[in-house]
Amino acid sequence: MSLYEATVPQFKKMLSNLDRWLQAAVAHAETKKFDPNTLVVARLAPDQYPLARQVQAACDQAKFGAARLSGKEPPKHADTEQTIDELRARIRVVIEYLDTFTPADFTGKDEALIALPFLEGKRITGSNYITEMTYPNFYFHVTTAYAILRHNGVNLGKRDFLGSMTLV
Amino acid sequence: MSLYEATVPQFKKMLSNLDRWLQAAVAHAETKKFDPNTLVVARLAPDQYPLARQVQAACDQAKFGAARLSGKEPPKHADTEQTIDELRARIRVVIEYLDTFTPADFTGKDEALIALPFLEGKRITGSNYITEMTYPNFYFHVTTAYAILRHNGVNLGKRDFLGSMTLV
Repeated sequence: MSLYEATVPQFKKMLSNLDRWLQAAVAHAETKKFDPNTLVVARLAPDQYPLARQVQAACDQAKFGAARLSGKEPPKHADTEQTIDELRARIRVVIEYLDTFTPADFTGKDEALIALPFLEGKRITGSNYITEMTYPNFYFHVTTAYAILRHNGVNLGKRDFLGSMTLV
Repeated sequence: MSLYEATVPQFKKMLSNLDRWLQAAVAHAETKKFDPNTLVVARLAPDQYPLARQVQAACDQAKFGAARLSGKEPPKHADTEQTIDELRARIRVVIEYLDTFTPADFTGKDEALIALPFLEGKRITGSNYITEMTYPNFYFHVTTAYAILRHNGVNLGKRDFLGSMTLV
Protein backbone atom coordinates (compact mmCIF):
# COMPACT_ATOMS: atom_id res chain seq x y z
CA MET A 1 0.00 0.00 0.00
CA SER A 2 1.21 3.47 -0.86
CA LEU A 3 1.43 5.68 2.20
CA TYR A 4 0.41 8.68 0.10
CA GLU A 5 -2.64 6.95 -1.42
CA ALA A 6 -3.68 5.66 1.99
CA THR A 7 -3.67 9.15 3.46
CA VAL A 8 -3.84 12.37 1.40
CA PRO A 9 -6.57 11.51 -1.16
CA GLN A 10 -8.65 9.68 1.46
CA PHE A 11 -8.35 12.50 4.01
CA LYS A 12 -9.35 15.00 1.31
CA LYS A 13 -12.37 12.94 0.33
CA MET A 14 -13.54 12.45 3.92
CA LEU A 15 -13.08 16.16 4.71
CA SER A 16 -15.10 17.03 1.58
CA ASN A 17 -17.77 14.60 2.80
CA LEU A 18 -17.71 16.29 6.21
CA ASP A 19 -18.19 19.64 4.48
CA ARG A 20 -21.26 18.25 2.72
CA TRP A 21 -22.70 17.00 6.03
CA LEU A 22 -22.35 20.53 7.37
CA GLN A 23 -24.17 21.86 4.31
CA ALA A 24 -26.92 19.29 4.94
CA ALA A 25 -27.08 20.53 8.55
CA VAL A 26 -27.65 24.10 7.32
CA ALA A 27 -30.37 22.91 4.93
CA HIS A 28 -32.00 20.95 7.78
CA ALA A 29 -31.92 24.02 10.04
CA GLU A 30 -33.52 26.16 7.32
CA THR A 31 -36.33 23.63 6.88
CA LYS A 32 -36.92 23.35 10.63
CA LYS A 33 -36.41 27.12 11.11
CA PHE A 34 -33.64 27.02 13.72
CA ASP A 35 -30.22 28.66 13.78
CA PRO A 36 -27.74 26.13 12.29
CA ASN A 37 -25.00 27.49 14.55
CA THR A 38 -26.71 25.98 17.60
CA LEU A 39 -25.27 22.69 16.28
CA VAL A 40 -21.69 23.95 16.64
CA VAL A 41 -21.86 23.37 20.43
CA ALA A 42 -23.94 20.17 20.23
CA ARG A 43 -22.38 17.08 21.82
CA LEU A 44 -23.36 13.48 22.53
CA ALA A 45 -22.21 13.46 26.17
CA PRO A 46 -21.49 16.35 28.55
CA ASP A 47 -17.84 15.25 28.82
CA GLN A 48 -17.31 14.73 25.09
CA TYR A 49 -16.20 17.45 22.68
CA PRO A 50 -18.87 19.36 20.73
CA LEU A 51 -19.22 19.46 16.96
CA ALA A 52 -16.78 22.36 16.51
CA ARG A 53 -13.96 20.49 18.27
CA GLN A 54 -14.72 17.28 16.37
CA VAL A 55 -14.34 19.13 13.06
CA GLN A 56 -11.18 20.91 14.24
CA ALA A 57 -9.68 17.62 15.44
CA ALA A 58 -10.48 15.81 12.18
CA CYS A 59 -8.78 18.65 10.29
CA ASP A 60 -5.79 18.46 12.63
CA GLN A 61 -5.35 14.70 12.27
CA ALA A 62 -5.22 15.05 8.48
CA LYS A 63 -2.93 18.09 8.64
CA PHE A 64 -0.51 16.65 11.20
CA GLY A 65 -0.60 13.23 9.57
CA ALA A 66 0.64 14.58 6.24
CA ALA A 67 3.02 17.11 7.81
CA ARG A 68 4.74 14.75 10.25
CA LEU A 69 5.08 11.91 7.76
CA SER A 70 6.71 14.23 5.25
CA GLY A 71 8.77 16.12 7.83
CA LYS A 72 7.18 19.48 6.95
CA GLU A 73 6.13 22.15 9.42
CA PRO A 74 2.30 22.21 9.57
CA PRO A 75 0.41 25.53 9.51
CA LYS A 76 -1.08 26.65 12.83
CA HIS A 77 -4.81 27.04 13.40
CA ALA A 78 -6.27 28.93 16.38
CA ASP A 79 -9.39 26.74 16.90
CA THR A 80 -11.62 29.81 17.22
CA GLU A 81 -14.40 28.68 14.84
CA GLN A 82 -17.88 29.42 16.22
CA THR A 83 -20.12 29.03 13.18
CA ILE A 84 -20.79 26.38 10.56
CA ASP A 85 -19.38 28.76 7.94
CA GLU A 86 -16.14 29.12 9.89
CA LEU A 87 -15.87 25.34 10.27
CA ARG A 88 -16.39 24.93 6.54
CA ALA A 89 -13.65 27.50 5.91
CA ARG A 90 -11.29 25.53 8.20
CA ILE A 91 -11.99 22.38 6.20
CA ARG A 92 -11.29 24.21 2.92
CA VAL A 93 -7.94 25.52 4.19
CA VAL A 94 -6.84 22.03 5.27
CA ILE A 95 -7.89 20.48 1.96
CA GLU A 96 -5.82 23.16 0.17
CA TYR A 97 -2.90 22.31 2.46
CA LEU A 98 -3.23 18.59 1.65
CA ASP A 99 -3.15 19.56 -2.05
CA THR A 100 0.45 20.75 -1.61
CA PHE A 101 1.68 17.15 -1.01
CA THR A 102 2.82 14.70 -3.65
CA PRO A 103 3.60 10.96 -3.39
CA ALA A 104 7.32 11.85 -3.38
CA ASP A 105 6.88 13.55 0.03
CA PHE A 106 6.12 10.13 1.53
CA THR A 107 8.81 8.01 -0.12
CA GLY A 108 10.48 5.72 2.42
CA LYS A 109 8.44 7.15 5.30
CA ASP A 110 6.79 3.81 6.13
CA GLU A 111 9.78 2.74 8.20
CA ALA A 112 11.01 6.21 9.20
CA LEU A 113 10.83 6.89 12.95
CA ILE A 114 8.64 9.85 13.83
CA ALA A 115 8.97 11.84 17.06
CA LEU A 116 5.76 13.32 18.43
CA PRO A 117 5.54 16.05 21.10
CA PHE A 118 3.30 13.95 23.37
CA LEU A 119 5.30 10.68 23.13
CA GLU A 120 7.91 11.60 25.78
CA GLY A 121 11.09 10.35 24.16
CA LYS A 122 9.50 7.45 22.29
CA ARG A 123 9.07 7.27 18.54
CA ILE A 124 6.78 5.47 16.12
CA THR A 125 7.29 4.26 12.56
CA GLY A 126 5.48 6.16 9.79
CA SER A 127 3.16 3.26 9.00
CA ASN A 128 2.31 2.63 12.65
CA TYR A 129 1.74 6.36 13.12
CA ILE A 130 -0.90 6.23 10.38
CA THR A 131 -2.40 2.84 11.25
CA GLU A 132 -2.46 3.10 15.05
CA MET A 133 -2.82 6.82 15.64
CA THR A 134 -3.82 9.05 12.73
CA TYR A 135 -6.41 6.81 11.11
CA PRO A 136 -8.32 5.84 14.27
CA ASN A 137 -8.22 9.44 15.51
CA PHE A 138 -9.24 10.92 12.16
CA TYR A 139 -12.16 8.52 11.75
CA PHE A 140 -13.11 8.92 15.39
CA HIS A 141 -13.62 12.65 14.89
CA VAL A 142 -15.35 12.54 11.48
CA THR A 143 -17.68 9.77 12.69
CA THR A 144 -18.48 11.62 15.92
CA ALA A 145 -19.21 14.81 13.93
CA TYR A 146 -21.50 12.74 11.71
CA ALA A 147 -23.14 11.14 14.76
CA ILE A 148 -23.81 14.54 16.38
CA LEU A 149 -25.55 15.70 13.19
CA ARG A 150 -27.55 12.45 12.85
CA HIS A 151 -28.55 12.66 16.51
CA ASN A 152 -29.87 16.17 15.79
CA GLY A 153 -32.02 14.99 12.91
CA VAL A 154 -29.84 15.90 9.91
CA ASN A 155 -30.79 13.68 6.98
CA LEU A 156 -27.62 11.68 6.22
CA GLY A 157 -26.88 8.06 5.39
CA LYS A 158 -23.92 5.71 5.00
CA ARG A 159 -23.34 6.74 1.36
CA ASP A 160 -22.89 10.34 2.50
CA PHE A 161 -20.37 9.09 5.02
CA LEU A 162 -18.30 7.01 2.59
CA GLY A 163 -18.42 9.22 -0.53
CA SER A 164 -17.11 8.01 -3.88
CA MET A 165 -15.05 4.85 -4.52
CA THR A 166 -12.34 4.17 -7.10
CA LEU A 167 -14.04 1.33 -8.98
CA VAL A 168 -12.79 -0.24 -12.22
CA MET B 1 2.78 -0.01 4.17
CA SER B 2 2.13 -3.70 4.64
CA LEU B 3 -1.46 -4.59 3.85
CA TYR B 4 -1.40 -7.23 6.60
CA GLU B 5 -0.02 -4.85 9.25
CA ALA B 6 -2.51 -2.17 8.23
CA THR B 7 -5.45 -4.52 8.73
CA VAL B 8 -5.32 -7.72 10.83
CA PRO B 9 -3.41 -6.55 13.95
CA GLN B 10 -5.23 -3.20 13.97
CA PHE B 11 -8.66 -4.80 13.55
CA LYS B 12 -7.85 -7.23 16.35
CA LYS B 13 -6.75 -4.41 18.65
CA MET B 14 -9.82 -2.27 17.93
CA LEU B 15 -12.17 -5.25 18.42
CA SER B 16 -10.44 -6.00 21.74
CA ASN B 17 -10.93 -2.34 22.67
CA LEU B 18 -14.62 -2.61 21.70
CA ASP B 19 -14.89 -5.67 23.95
CA ARG B 20 -13.49 -3.62 26.84
CA TRP B 21 -16.01 -0.82 26.20
CA LEU B 22 -18.78 -3.42 26.49
CA GLN B 23 -17.28 -4.62 29.78
CA ALA B 24 -17.24 -1.00 30.97
CA ALA B 25 -20.90 -0.74 29.96
CA VAL B 26 -21.74 -3.76 32.12
CA ALA B 27 -19.83 -2.27 35.05
CA HIS B 28 -21.66 1.05 34.56
CA ALA B 29 -25.03 -0.75 34.52
CA GLU B 30 -24.16 -2.60 37.73
CA THR B 31 -23.26 0.68 39.45
CA LYS B 32 -26.41 2.40 38.24
CA LYS B 33 -28.51 -0.74 38.83
CA PHE B 34 -29.99 -1.15 35.37
CA ASP B 35 -30.02 -4.12 32.98
CA PRO B 36 -26.93 -3.73 30.72
CA ASN B 37 -28.81 -5.42 27.88
CA THR B 38 -31.07 -2.38 27.53
CA LEU B 39 -28.02 -0.83 25.80
CA VAL B 40 -28.06 -3.47 23.04
CA VAL B 41 -31.00 -1.69 21.36
CA ALA B 42 -29.80 1.87 22.15
CA ARG B 43 -29.27 4.12 19.14
CA LEU B 44 -28.34 7.75 18.48
CA ALA B 45 -31.10 8.41 15.95
CA PRO B 46 -34.33 6.50 15.27
CA ASP B 47 -33.15 5.71 11.72
CA GLN B 48 -29.62 4.65 12.71
CA TYR B 49 -28.64 1.11 13.70
CA PRO B 50 -28.59 0.22 17.43
CA LEU B 51 -25.54 -0.91 19.38
CA ALA B 52 -25.98 -4.60 18.46
CA ARG B 53 -25.89 -3.88 14.73
CA GLN B 54 -22.92 -1.52 15.13
CA VAL B 55 -20.93 -4.29 16.84
CA GLN B 56 -22.01 -6.89 14.26
CA ALA B 57 -21.07 -4.55 11.40
CA ALA B 58 -17.65 -3.76 12.88
CA CYS B 59 -17.02 -7.50 13.21
CA ASP B 60 -18.17 -8.04 9.62
CA GLN B 61 -15.94 -5.31 8.17
CA ALA B 62 -12.90 -6.91 9.81
CA LYS B 63 -13.94 -10.45 8.83
CA PHE B 64 -14.83 -9.60 5.22
CA GLY B 65 -11.80 -7.32 4.87
CA ALA B 66 -9.36 -10.11 5.70
CA ALA B 67 -11.33 -12.80 3.86
CA ARG B 68 -11.84 -10.91 0.60
CA LEU B 69 -8.28 -9.59 0.44
CA SER B 70 -6.89 -13.09 0.91
CA GLY B 71 -9.48 -14.77 -1.33
CA LYS B 72 -10.75 -17.02 1.49
CA GLU B 73 -14.38 -17.85 2.18
CA PRO B 74 -15.47 -16.00 5.37
CA PRO B 75 -17.48 -17.79 8.07
CA LYS B 76 -21.19 -16.89 8.26
CA HIS B 77 -22.75 -15.22 11.29
CA ALA B 78 -26.51 -15.07 11.83
CA ASP B 79 -26.65 -11.61 13.51
CA THR B 80 -28.93 -12.91 16.25
CA GLU B 81 -27.08 -11.42 19.24
CA GLN B 82 -29.44 -9.90 21.81
CA THR B 83 -27.25 -9.49 24.88
CA ILE B 84 -23.91 -7.88 25.71
CA ASP B 85 -22.51 -11.35 26.43
CA GLU B 86 -23.55 -12.56 22.98
CA LEU B 87 -21.98 -9.50 21.35
CA ARG B 88 -18.77 -10.15 23.27
CA ALA B 89 -18.82 -13.79 22.08
CA ARG B 90 -19.22 -12.56 18.48
CA ILE B 91 -16.17 -10.32 18.89
CA ARG B 92 -14.13 -13.23 20.31
CA VAL B 93 -15.03 -15.49 17.37
CA VAL B 94 -13.99 -12.84 14.85
CA ILE B 95 -10.70 -12.15 16.64
CA GLU B 96 -9.98 -15.90 16.55
CA TYR B 97 -10.79 -15.90 12.83
CA LEU B 98 -8.39 -12.98 12.25
CA ASP B 99 -5.74 -15.03 14.08
CA THR B 100 -5.82 -17.58 11.25
CA PHE B 101 -4.28 -15.08 8.79
CA THR B 102 -0.59 -14.51 8.15
CA PRO B 103 1.20 -11.76 6.16
CA ALA B 104 1.66 -14.28 3.31
CA ASP B 105 -2.13 -14.33 2.80
CA PHE B 106 -1.93 -10.71 1.65
CA THR B 107 1.15 -10.83 -0.59
CA GLY B 108 0.51 -8.96 -3.84
CA LYS B 109 -3.08 -8.17 -2.90
CA ASP B 110 -2.57 -4.39 -2.97
CA GLU B 111 -3.08 -4.29 -6.73
CA ALA B 112 -5.30 -7.38 -7.05
CA LEU B 113 -8.83 -6.61 -8.28
CA ILE B 114 -11.53 -7.65 -5.85
CA ALA B 115 -15.13 -8.37 -6.87
CA LEU B 116 -17.76 -7.57 -4.27
CA PRO B 117 -21.37 -8.83 -4.35
CA PHE B 118 -22.82 -5.28 -4.13
CA LEU B 119 -20.54 -3.67 -6.77
CA GLU B 120 -22.59 -4.80 -9.80
CA GLY B 121 -19.87 -5.87 -12.22
CA LYS B 122 -17.29 -3.36 -11.00
CA ARG B 123 -14.13 -4.25 -9.08
CA ILE B 124 -11.78 -2.44 -6.71
CA THR B 125 -8.08 -2.89 -5.99
CA GLY B 126 -7.10 -4.45 -2.67
CA SER B 127 -5.58 -1.25 -1.32
CA ASN B 128 -8.56 0.87 -2.39
CA TYR B 129 -10.89 -1.72 -0.87
CA ILE B 130 -9.17 -1.23 2.46
CA THR B 131 -8.62 2.54 2.24
CA GLU B 132 -11.95 3.61 0.75
CA MET B 133 -14.34 0.96 2.01
CA THR B 134 -13.22 -1.33 4.84
CA TYR B 135 -11.39 1.22 6.97
CA PRO B 136 -14.04 3.96 6.89
CA ASN B 137 -16.81 1.40 7.46
CA PHE B 138 -14.96 -0.39 10.24
CA TYR B 139 -14.15 2.82 12.10
CA PHE B 140 -17.64 4.16 11.46
CA HIS B 141 -19.15 1.22 13.33
CA VAL B 142 -16.66 1.02 16.21
CA THR B 143 -16.90 4.79 16.74
CA THR B 144 -20.70 4.74 16.62
CA ALA B 145 -20.75 1.86 19.14
CA TYR B 146 -18.43 3.91 21.36
CA ALA B 147 -20.62 7.01 20.90
CA ILE B 148 -23.79 5.11 21.87
CA LEU B 149 -22.09 3.97 25.09
CA ARG B 150 -20.71 7.45 25.85
CA HIS B 151 -24.14 8.98 25.18
CA ASN B 152 -25.54 6.54 27.75
CA GLY B 153 -23.06 7.57 30.42
CA VAL B 154 -20.46 4.80 30.17
CA ASN B 155 -17.15 6.10 31.51
CA LEU B 156 -14.79 5.93 28.51
CA GLY B 157 -12.16 8.25 27.06
CA LYS B 158 -9.97 8.57 23.98
CA ARG B 159 -7.28 6.26 25.38
CA ASP B 160 -9.88 3.51 25.69
CA PHE B 161 -10.77 4.14 22.07
CA LEU B 162 -7.21 4.01 20.71
CA GLY B 163 -5.69 1.26 22.88
CA SER B 164 -1.99 0.50 22.82
CA MET B 165 0.59 1.85 20.33
CA THR B 166 3.75 0.25 18.94
CA LEU B 167 6.32 2.76 20.24
CA VAL B 168 10.09 2.35 20.06
